[in-house]
Amino acid sequence: MTQTLPLPPGSTIGILGGGQLGRMLALAAGRLGFDAVVLERDADSPAGRVAVRCLVGAYDDPAALKQLTDLADVVTYEFENVPAETVRLLVAQGAEVAPGPRALAVAQDRVEEKTFLNANGAPTVAFAAASTPEEARDAAERIGVPCLMKTRREGYDGKGQRWVEHVADAATAFAALGGVPVIVEAAAEFVRELSVIAARGRDGATAVYPLAENHHEHGILRRSIAPARVTPAMADQAERIAARILSGLDYVGVIGIELFEMPDSRLLVNEFAPRVHNSGHWTQDGCEVDQFEQHIRAVAGWPLGPTHAIAQVEMVNLLGAEADAWLRLAGEPETRIHLYGKRETKPGRKMGHVNRVKPL
Amino acid sequence: MTQTLPLPPGSTIGILGGGQLGRMLALAAGRLGFDAVVLERDADSPAGRVAVRCLVGAYDDPAALKQLTDLADVVTYEFENVPAETVRLLVAQGAEVAPGPRALAVAQDRVEEKTFLNANGAPTVAFAAASTPEEARDAAERIGVPCLMKTRREGYDGKGQRWVEHVADAATAFAALGGVPVIVEAAAEFVRELSVIAARGRDGATAVYPLAENHHEHGILRRSIAPARVTPAMADQAERIAARILSGLDYVGVIGIELFEMPDSRLLVNEFAPRVHNSGHWTQDGCEVDQFEQHIRAVAGWPLGPTHAIAQVEMVNLLGAEADAWLRLAGEPETRIHLYGKRETKPGRKMGHVNRVKPL
Repeated sequence: MTQTLPLPPGSTIGILGGGQLGRMLALAAGRLGFDAVVLERDADSPAGRVAVRCLVGAYDDPAALKQLTDLADVVTYEFENVPAETVRLLVAQGAEVAPGPRALAVAQDRVEEKTFLNANGAPTVAFAAASTPEEARDAAERIGVPCLMKTRREGYDGKGQRWVEHVADAATAFAALGGVPVIVEAAAEFVRELSVIAARGRDGATAVYPLAENHHEHGILRRSIAPARVTPAMADQAERIAARILSGLDYVGVIGIELFEMPDSRLLVNEFAPRVHNSGHWTQDGCEVDQFEQHIRAVAGWPLGPTHAIAQVEMVNLLGAEADAWLRLAGEPETRIHLYGKRETKPGRKMGHVNRVKPL
Repeated sequence: MTQTLPLPPGSTIGILGGGQLGRMLALAAGRLGFDAVVLERDADSPAGRVAVRCLVGAYDDPAALKQLTDLADVVTYEFENVPAETVRLLVAQGAEVAPGPRALAVAQDRVEEKTFLNANGAPTVAFAAASTPEEARDAAERIGVPCLMKTRREGYDGKGQRWVEHVADAATAFAALGGVPVIVEAAAEFVRELSVIAARGRDGATAVYPLAENHHEHGILRRSIAPARVTPAMADQAERIAARILSGLDYVGVIGIELFEMPDSRLLVNEFAPRVHNSGHWTQDGCEVDQFEQHIRAVAGWPLGPTHAIAQVEMVNLLGAEADAWLRLAGEPETRIHLYGKRETKPGRKMGHVNRVKPL
């Protein structure tokens, strides 16, 4: 914590979280001449193995956070569920954290998030909050069925959510989700799922990548096609939404915004993640500056890089044993391989991804 | 040393040398899911800081080499002056070293190198060996002046060589070079300096990148332009030369071959380096699979990747204080930045490079 922004090469980027996003951030930092320090519970994590140092500890361990603050010139994170207390501690210790506490707080609570989005001109489906079985029932009635009940906090890749088909089932769904505060969302009768990856620098400049079209299976991203075929008007709409969210949060870094394309061509925001995003992995082989370098540029106070596409990409996640096909994939001339170095293969676990590249 | 080839992701690539080439190899290994272990004298080296582990030791320290053999599934190197004894020790300990001892032995001795090249249909300038002042004089007389006297071993970036303008000066030049065995080379009246980066896999398959046109200053590469404007016939000539060298050495990995374009359009080989090469840095932003990933693929026994150009690139080395312009360079939309994380700036030291990218 001695450097002023913009950070000169040789500075240290602190990363909370040792998974694949942290790994790809650390590799991008390395290309620009930065050192990466990772804080992670697991001593042998994907990101830790490409970092100059891995601090092993919990995200709310004050001693580990103090070490991170001492070593890192700026601290960022690879996942949105960083405890608010962690960020408070880091900031109190003098750390420069980006994206900042406001983006995290909003992203961690689905009711806060949708309230923020609607207040900032980024429309979403109708929603209601509920904290008791009775409120859950009322919410389902008000929103209409079928509707989607999700825990307000935590949950990802389809975990922590239930469809409610009948108002009478709302209380059961509420109990099944653990009796914690929930959000009840109207069903979005969308045509496609799209996403937009965008970035905002410390100077307030923004850069927006072309849209990706996303296909999920069992709640997990299966593949993204980018640039997605969209009209210029829809691309404009996505850019405006991204710009509103970024400036509304006074954001620094890369953000991933999931969108629903509705039959009337309106875009609704499903949710955003205050970090690099799986649906932005196509930028590694489809853009000159990928989302990982862009994030490092932003948090380091560097100017943002170009975001136009230089290739057409199909990104496919390698889940579980699918990554065992590495040798066949390596032999496909159009296939760029990205593997995360995870020690253990589990069904559905993101082990890597490929970008299949074609000329634009 | 437990894995058989091809190496599965999660295997460990051992790298002798901790400089920028080792760093970029380690970053490429990381993208493919490999771990990198670096052996280097300096505990805080560019490559060591992106590796899972840095073994601190001399390249001929048997204990350090034993550790490297124990940790790494394959061992490679970032510089051609690895002592032959090092490779002997590694191989004796059961290490899989690539490129192999033959490539290193030939590359380390300029007389061996040119003898090998001419014997394998890869023409060079006329040359003669000399080990005494008298032999040096005779060699200069036979080759003709002006001629270039170089130490047979060591020397790079223009170090360890002298121009001899008059036969009578040969003995002085010989003494100035330390009285060690030398090679005396005819002056090449070349039109341009070109280079070709090529690779050979463990299965004998070869892949050749488009030619680069190179400009040196004070013996140090200043910039490369790639793909170089050449006729198809000249590209064929370069490919044939590369293929002959690779198969003649039973080579595994990436090789950098420096060429002279002569006025009659013939290509002469100046020298080759049995490693990734500065004049191949353009491939990072000009090709789908760059020379670093290609080298990792080859030594790991993976299939080679595509080598066609997807962009026109001007690679410029950032020497010494030139790298201090990082903030201005980061603001140039066409400029991709690669910095090596070297702690100390020295005049002429390679601190990083930029690739200025244009559509083909």
